[in-house]
Amino acid sequence: MSTATDSSAQSPAETPTETPDKTPDKAPDAALASALRAHLDGPFGEVRDHCRALDAATFGPPSVPLPMDEHRSRVTSQLSALAQQPYAASGFPERQGGTARYGEAVAAFEMLGHSDLSLFVKAGVQWGLFGGAVSLLGTSRHDHLVPRLVSGELQGCFAMTETGHGSDVQSLLTTATFDPATDEIVVHSPVPAARKDYIGNAARDASLAAVFAQLVVDGESHGVHCVLVPIRDGAGAPARGVTIEDCGPKLGLDGVDNGRLLFDHVRVPRSNLLGRYGDIDDDGAYSSPIDNPSRRFFTMLGTLVRGRISVAGGAGAAARSALAVTTTYAVGRRQFAAPGSDVETTVLDYRTYQRRLLPRIATAYALQLAQHELVSAMDDVLAGRTTSEQDQRQLETRAAGIKVLTTRHATDTIQECRELCGGAGYLWSNRLAALKADTDIFTTFEGDNTVLLQLVAKSLLTEYQATFGDLDTAGIVRFGARLVGGTVIERSSARGIVQRLVDAAPGREEDVTFGIRGTQLRLLREREEHLIEGLARRLRRATAPGVDAFAVFNATQDHLVDAGTAHVERVVAETFAASVECCADEDARAVLSRVCDLHLLSTIERHKAWYLEHDRLSPARAKALTALVNEVCAELRPHAQTLVDAFGIPAGLLTTEMSGTT
Amino acid sequence: MSTATDSSAQSPAETPTETPDKTPDKAPDAALASALRAHLDGPFGEVRDHCRALDAATFGPPSVPLPMDEHRSRVTSQLSALAQQPYAASGFPERQGGTARYGEAVAAFEMLGHSDLSLFVKAGVQWGLFGGAVSLLGTSRHDHLVPRLVSGELQGCFAMTETGHGSDVQSLLTTATFDPATDEIVVHSPVPAARKDYIGNAARDASLAAVFAQLVVDGESHGVHCVLVPIRDGAGAPARGVTIEDCGPKLGLDGVDNGRLLFDHVRVPRSNLLGRYGDIDDDGAYSSPIDNPSRRFFTMLGTLVRGRISVAGGAGAAARSALAVTTTYAVGRRQFAAPGSDVETTVLDYRTYQRRLLPRIATAYALQLAQHELVSAMDDVLAGRTTSEQDQRQLETRAAGIKVLTTRHATDTIQECRELCGGAGYLWSNRLAALKADTDIFTTFEGDNTVLLQLVAKSLLTEYQATFGDLDTAGIVRFGARLVGGTVIERSSARGIVQRLVDAAPGREEDVTFGIRGTQLRLLREREEHLIEGLARRLRRATAPGVDAFAVFNATQDHLVDAGTAHVERVVAETFAASVECCADEDARAVLSRVCDLHLLSTIERHKAWYLEHDRLSPARAKALTALVNEVCAELRPHAQTLVDAFGIPAGLLTTEMSGTT
Repeated sequence: MSTATDSSAQSPAETPTETPDKTPDKAPDAALASALRAHLDGPFGEVRDHCRALDAATFGPPSVPLPMDEHRSRVTSQLSALAQQPYAASGFPERQGGTARYGEAVAAFEMLGHSDLSLFVKAGVQWGLFGGAVSLLGTSRHDHLVPRLVSGELQGCFAMTETGHGSDVQSLLTTATFDPATDEIVVHSPVPAARKDYIGNAARDASLAAVFAQLVVDGESHGVHCVLVPIRDGAGAPARGVTIEDCGPKLGLDGVDNGRLLFDHVRVPRSNLLGRYGDIDDDGAYSSPIDNPSRRFFTMLGTLVRGRISVAGGAGAAARSALAVTTTYAVGRRQFAAPGSDVETTVLDYRTYQRRLLPRIATAYALQLAQHELVSAMDDVLAGRTTSEQDQRQLETRAAGIKVLTTRHATDTIQECRELCGGAGYLWSNRLAALKADTDIFTTFEGDNTVLLQLVAKSLLTEYQATFGDLDTAGIVRFGARLVGGTVIERSSARGIVQRLVDAAPGREEDVTFGIRGTQLRLLREREEHLIEGLARRLRRATAPGVDAFAVFNATQDHLVDAGTAHVERVVAETFAASVECCADEDARAVLSRVCDLHLLSTIERHKAWYLEHDRLSPARAKALTALVNEVCAELRPHAQTLVDAFGIPAGLLTTEMSGTT
Repeated sequence: MSTATDSSAQSPAETPTETPDKTPDKAPDAALASALRAHLDGPFGEVRDHCRALDAATFGPPSVPLPMDEHRSRVTSQLSALAQQPYAASGFPERQGGTARYGEAVAAFEMLGHSDLSLFVKAGVQWGLFGGAVSLLGTSRHDHLVPRLVSGELQGCFAMTETGHGSDVQSLLTTATFDPATDEIVVHSPVPAARKDYIGNAARDASLAAVFAQLVVDGESHGVHCVLVPIRDGAGAPARGVTIEDCGPKLGLDGVDNGRLLFDHVRVPRSNLLGRYGDIDDDGAYSSPIDNPSRRFFTMLGTLVRGRISVAGGAGAAARSALAVTTTYAVGRRQFAAPGSDVETTVLDYRTYQRRLLPRIATAYALQLAQHELVSAMDDVLAGRTTSEQDQRQLETRAAGIKVLTTRHATDTIQECRELCGGAGYLWSNRLAALKADTDIFTTFEGDNTVLLQLVAKSLLTEYQATFGDLDTAGIVRFGARLVGGTVIERSSARGIVQRLVDAAPGREEDVTFGIRGTQLRLLREREEHLIEGLARRLRRATAPGVDAFAVFNATQDHLVDAGTAHVERVVAETFAASVECCADEDARAVLSRVCDLHLLSTIERHKAWYLEHDRLSPARAKALTALVNEVCAELRPHAQTLVDAFGIPAGLLTTEMSGTT
């Protein structure tokens, strides 16, 4: 394969001698890295340190791509070894034999994101999705299953997605019909599109499936419920009436045995219905604590929020792995001598390289800190410290939003890192290849990102449905104000800090000073408010008589996506800003503050067209913004290695053949 | 794996009945598709049809990912079968036993881009890179090798890239030292960084390597030259002094045996020097037809331009495969019923989906047509119909630019297509996984895209070096004017058409009418001119005394990248516009014109921030632009299947398990 050439007319360089760099590399500052790590580790630092000490040979990724069957076997064994660790039990309440340390469970799971993502997903299916369904949708009659699934003795899968319905779960076609004659539930796939598809753990290991199906009792459909269906007998053969297919090879995650399930009038006892939100009593009568079928459906799904939070965590970890590999490469790699010099320049000294790498490191910081807030909020909800339905819904909205931003960030970042490492980035041995292949699905599983962003925006509107009904201009303004003030589950101290920062910034005027944190935050708020307000106006038209509601809805789709994005970006930015203020170590705080600048400014810069189009920035200020992002990149460049060292990626999981100079 | 849910409160849909769609799908229009295909096929339609008729079982991709060794064997066999086809010989002049149909060779090669990309790359290495080096850098004493390499009897590799030097070929470290005592050349890797790396065909099959090395004669270095070095003996073992390593598994292209070569004072006869641009005579004296070493270097590399053109062709083909798979999925897939309806909506009817898919189809058209121009220009140069150095340099610039745009387009498009197909897009069987993995390297091989864009911009400046020397304001304006008028190798008719379109557009004023082709083109021209002019001004400062030239150069890097991009985008846009005017079929021309609108408008929209920042578009016009792109998407939606049918992807190469509804 040939390569690019530069048109500058240098004489052939001699073997480079090791003379000082253009930008003298600070030796990575161990104390600073350590202080940054302590901050980045957030509330579950001990758990992270425990995971860091786990044996990389046991839990690490394979050193070469294995044949699919071998890879699957390896991951199954790793899962057994993982069951010996305390963290599977952390995800379940004490009455089910767990330790109810939900935040720790998710933090430990996130650390698996630095290892083989197949193991990450397999563990997520077993304990998060299958275990979560049993634990959260089941009743006391299912509690006995939990210790068995925690230990791995009982393996299960989560059979929700169907071939014909991915994003639209509510419309899935599998039926679960109560037969009072035998006191059984009959699970059936009425059409090929009802086939359960892409089901992790189904092709090889699971003996029990948590099957989502339309529950029909006495001829009446009660919407989607979950039923436990044995899919394999003791010998591992498909159970009677169950057809199991293998999804076969995929782009990545080949250690996960994704499969397909078809049910032909499969009978299970009535007690197999996970009946917390809708059960059938001994007389064969259906009842639910939630009357409204739609509310019931969303409540059930809402309990499974941990899945999205966990995917966000793993995606963030994978992106940090890629950034660490690439930064280590970039601070050592030299290419092209500067005019008048025979010392080749370190690639990270090139502006184009800095622009591609450093803002992504800053965003990795932002998302990591946002993840902590999210996990802590989840911990509060699951442990029952927060009980309002509003808090639950806000958690779901936040989880959806952070999942989108983090998985998008992971996909984009790993791609960019692959390219930044050139041919070396394409080799399996340097890890980027596996990271790329394995994480690619994250943008569409546990919720398609585009659909999720619309969900985020709609949730924001729904929350104010009462106000929305008669929304006049004054109402819209109030709506915007309340949106900023009240929609998020935030530590009240954080909210106070952010408000103080914003209040301290000069008012909106031509002469925007981008270096002021409050101004940065205000710009992101303004974008969110404007987008949501505009959306409210447009959607209101859909309710007018004679209007084609679908046409209006469809025309606002991209507006919904933008509004959802703007909301989550603002939330992440505010979390970062508040977190900087709370950083105890002075040196770390100074660097962190600059990283925060880079994340916020590059986020604003990405939406430069919007700010110009809406007259929030003048052309001159927009140009100044780009110049400032360049400056901050150059300023952070000497800290690059320290910044990724602070990720604290477990030893042994980043071994690569790459080194810059040789 | 769980999925997203929509918050609209629909009752569970029944099995969808097949009723008419929201947007009635026109049955794909075979006559229209055929007319569009004839236009898209360009000057080498017969070659394409011949390739379409090739047996997919013989030349197609494997149906499952094979173990690496097995995949490599398969590709090696396929290469032998391919050697029976007439197209390998097309790429060589008659005096070397070829048929000198260079354009046909590249067009046929491009069609391989719809098949297994490993075969595409393997063929490219054997006939394009290795064959090209022998043919174009060798002298008559090497002509006898060509028939043997065309038939595949002699297999070779192209050993340019080194571990320590990828983009900066001029600084590579391998030495080729003439030893007059034995009349031999000694090829040597003096340091580990001199190791030849990522060399296709090296790990398994090649017996001869075209090795790029610093040629030293009588103690004097003459810069990079190419020497033929046998790397394997008759039994396939490494030749004496040659160390061969295997790069091992990669993200994709596992059918290509990439390897590493190290030379320990390997002696080859003097005649092994490919001496067309620098040779050693019987007296041991070096001479070259080109005195200036730098010019000599770039002339040698310039002859190898076909590699980049071919990669662009393959990348374009791969992107079209992905678009065809995805469009077929999207016109059949339904998800979510519209309010008040129990018929689920076809996903391509959603605006967000249209926005993600249709502009990429339009860009695929643009790049395919630009590729034809490029291949025709290359055909003229290689066949000697165009001989000026300026034309050669312009061809190189154009090739670099189109390579960047097309490989970027391929990577982005295949990623987007994967996501648009959800879980189905992640399965190996649906082809997107292989397309993604295999093409990922294209953005950095045959020239790193970021480096190439800077090369493009520098070439534009270099071409006007004389003017540039004393560039005052008037000079800069002339420079801009000449840039648009004269830098491209275009059929003069095309240039005339474009100028006529631009002249017909109203002048620059507030009330820009985006629907007018000339206005669309003028906007793209203005961006290019402004960026190049600004660049010229900034770089001029670097020549002032006392200025840190590296700092100036580095600060303008992103400006160079933008200028290079703007140039190529303008060229591609003009080619498309001219091509529309030349389309003979009236119906096809009407649709093509709308596709051209979509490509041009979405290109302008992507740079919306720039137009606003430079006061070329008002906020109101910028918003109108987005609305218009939405409109054109909706208008083209019923033609989507026809548009991808027109790609004429060989039967048997697109078989997937995906279908929309089931």
